[in-house]
Amino acid sequence: MTRRSLPPEKFHRLFYPQVPIVVSVKHENRIGGMPAIWCMPTSFKPQLIALAIAPDHETYRMISAASNFALNWLDHRYAKQVGKLGNTSARQTCNKLLAVGLTTIEGEKTGQPLIQEASAVAECTLLENRRTGTHELIIAEVASASADHFSDYWNFDQYDPILYAGTGNHDTKAWDFRTLRRKESSDVSQRTDPS
Amino acid sequence: MTRRSLPPEKFHRLFYPQVPIVVSVKHENRIGGMPAIWCMPTSFKPQLIALAIAPDHETYRMISAASNFALNWLDHRYAKQVGKLGNTSARQTCNKLLAVGLTTIEGEKTGQPLIQEASAVAECTLLENRRTGTHELIIAEVASASADHFSDYWNFDQYDPILYAGTGNHDTKAWDFRTLRRKESSDVSQRTDPS
Repeated sequence: MTRRSLPPEKFHRLFYPQVPIVVSVKHENRIGGMPAIWCMPTSFKPQLIALAIAPDHETYRMISAASNFALNWLDHRYAKQVGKLGNTSARQTCNKLLAVGLTTIEGEKTGQPLIQEASAVAECTLLENRRTGTHELIIAEVASASADHFSDYWNFDQYDPILYAGTGNHDTKAWDFRTLRRKESSDVSQRTDPS
Repeated sequence: MTRRSLPPEKFHRLFYPQVPIVVSVKHENRIGGMPAIWCMPTSFKPQLIALAIAPDHETYRMISAASNFALNWLDHRYAKQVGKLGNTSARQTCNKLLAVGLTTIEGEKTGQPLIQEASAVAECTLLENRRTGTHELIIAEVASASADHFSDYWNFDQYDPILYAGTGNHDTKAWDFRTLRRKESSDVSQRTDPS
């Protein structure tokens, strides 16, 4: 055993690889979206999820105001678009999803934007949000969910999940997205705030 | 787009693949442990994590009583042991980790058991636990963390994470653990409660 002590700012990277889930939201005729790494289920019945987002994200502000949002699982072939969503702010555009080349339809339960290209989507209603350290911890209830290439489980022969593994070990600041299919990483986009 | 509506009981599987983190705990001279799928960071500073566990798990009761616990990241070569931890209860033994072939040392900060074979470990102190639907949502602060094969990020050439992908699509009820390295799944153990 040769484990070495880990600086606090790197601790969260132990959880990699993680599937980034694109959070989408519409508020006052503007559409925002961002990849969320810190998102998981917390209850079977009711179906609850926990989502931790830094409060300075415009997408967070929109979620908080709209009280509804959606989760979108995108196949690895949309890794470039997901990377772009992580590099831009919803402040810069009235439809951030469209700006990166993704189209949306309105969710039936909440009216929130669902990404048409997504392999799976879920409409969520915010139950609670509260500050936990640097992030806002959102608890939300799932109003509906649908998926392609999924029967009892994902069919990973057809759905190729994005596996976020960091931002590259060296000088590059590209998102490091891996897949279950190929060993090599695919750095798909530049970002300015490695995490 | 051919997405089909998803029954509530299958929703959580959209989050697969996920890295199972082994939660270890010592209380009244008994050592418990279980793989947790629903575990993520929620804050950079302080370093906080959220962990959702079904309250009927003996390991949950021990965490709640001890107010401290540890997280352990095991390489895919220990997939069999991790699967066994998911199939047995801490009620059945005084040292559940040893019973599946894993050894522990005492954490310096909390005295909680750290798995020697783990690629990374973190000692945690429970700050809060509360019921959210079917599960208890634990918020804990990380007291210390250490890792092997990790500099700024995981070195995935040396650390081969377990990727939990469900319990098999067919008659088998084996844990479906995948890796970044091979496409084929490796069903490593039997379980009785597919999730």
